[in-house]
Amino acid sequence: MGQGIEMPDQENNKRAVVLLSGGLDSCTALAIARSQGYECYAVSFDYGQRHHTELAAAERIARTLGAREHITLKLDLGQIGGSALTDQAIDVPINPEDEIPITYVPARNTVFLSLALGWAEVLNADDLFIGVNAVDYSGYPDCRPEFIRAFEEVARLATRAGVEGHPFRIHTPLINLTKADIIKKGIELGIDYSITVSCYQADEEGRACGKCDSCRFRAEGFRKANVPDPTRYQ
Amino acid sequence: MGQGIEMPDQENNKRAVVLLSGGLDSCTALAIARSQGYECYAVSFDYGQRHHTELAAAERIARTLGAREHITLKLDLGQIGGSALTDQAIDVPINPEDEIPITYVPARNTVFLSLALGWAEVLNADDLFIGVNAVDYSGYPDCRPEFIRAFEEVARLATRAGVEGHPFRIHTPLINLTKADIIKKGIELGIDYSITVSCYQADEEGRACGKCDSCRFRAEGFRKANVPDPTRYQ
Repeated sequence: MGQGIEMPDQENNKRAVVLLSGGLDSCTALAIARSQGYECYAVSFDYGQRHHTELAAAERIARTLGAREHITLKLDLGQIGGSALTDQAIDVPINPEDEIPITYVPARNTVFLSLALGWAEVLNADDLFIGVNAVDYSGYPDCRPEFIRAFEEVARLATRAGVEGHPFRIHTPLINLTKADIIKKGIELGIDYSITVSCYQADEEGRACGKCDSCRFRAEGFRKANVPDPTRYQ
Repeated sequence: MGQGIEMPDQENNKRAVVLLSGGLDSCTALAIARSQGYECYAVSFDYGQRHHTELAAAERIARTLGAREHITLKLDLGQIGGSALTDQAIDVPINPEDEIPITYVPARNTVFLSLALGWAEVLNADDLFIGVNAVDYSGYPDCRPEFIRAFEEVARLATRAGVEGHPFRIHTPLINLTKADIIKKGIELGIDYSITVSCYQADEEGRACGKCDSCRFRAEGFRKANVPDPTRYQ
């Protein structure tokens, strides 16, 4: 299965949709889903983000970690505007001071979970994995546990699964872990994190800026986990 | 304001995002929002639907009813598959017998509400109108009142509004009305329904098939409302 990750046989196993951004967290969430025996269907989103090299990373991760299928859904959040990650007129801040940073994309996780839910329904999958994290969460409201529980209720009511009475589960294996704990867990599962890209403004080759919010959390995570940082910087 | 609809002055009024499909229901929802004094931002979705002429109808409706702005977001649900409305390999059934028909698009309203929520956040709008209907609802699970309430909770938790403690409201003015009641309400507000398209397989000129589920509900509505049916048929 590559990288020495011990994975159960995929035959006769349950299907799960996994949100895969190409970053460190979602890569770890996919590895955890695979280690629990799920046949994984990874979905990425091309939403006009500045950090487009994340998508190349997602493709690489899906292949390396043995996802059964990987799709990239295109949607133009730039038309809605309002975030430094999609609006070219807004600079990515180096030291955000607001409670909710300008890199917050309006309702992003709600949109991503909705589309993942649609695919899960087509696949007859009752399980969905998302690598949200409530500890080093950068202040995004849609990374909080209460948001995830509320969305799970929406999923139960919105779909055939709900009507037919079987539960739909949203798994958040990283939600209470620090970045360092996430990294330790991933290393245990055999992940080579050099294939992931977390930076908000990585260059064409996927090299990180080392300065943005996301880069700082990541570097600090490797430091605290006592693991050499494999990130390629500009 | 066209069509003789008496509308309050838009200055200093509250903003609302309105989901506008181009059909009879969403047109009526927009007219109701306008009659309540909201400055309306209409959003339509180009999701690979067969009934593409709906989008031309939506544009016409937004203009005629005085929406402040109208955007059409493109997203490719066809990549996910699973519905007769987006999958060219599945025929639209004439007399669906299943509890949930094959024209159901997986998680469609969840996806649409999520994107509308993102736009509402950028606009600082705390109100959203959707023309869902639990009476003549064709068996779609995501048209039920309990689904809408669950999504309202997601909206409260997912957004800045929730963090800042002001409520986000999802208005469903049609939810308990029959199709005939909706039509009567719209006629009261001065709507000319000939500009709307409800058919799942309308032709290039927006003429309806007269046979699909949606056409049958609509025609029956006009009959029961005792209003001449202005629909242009093929």
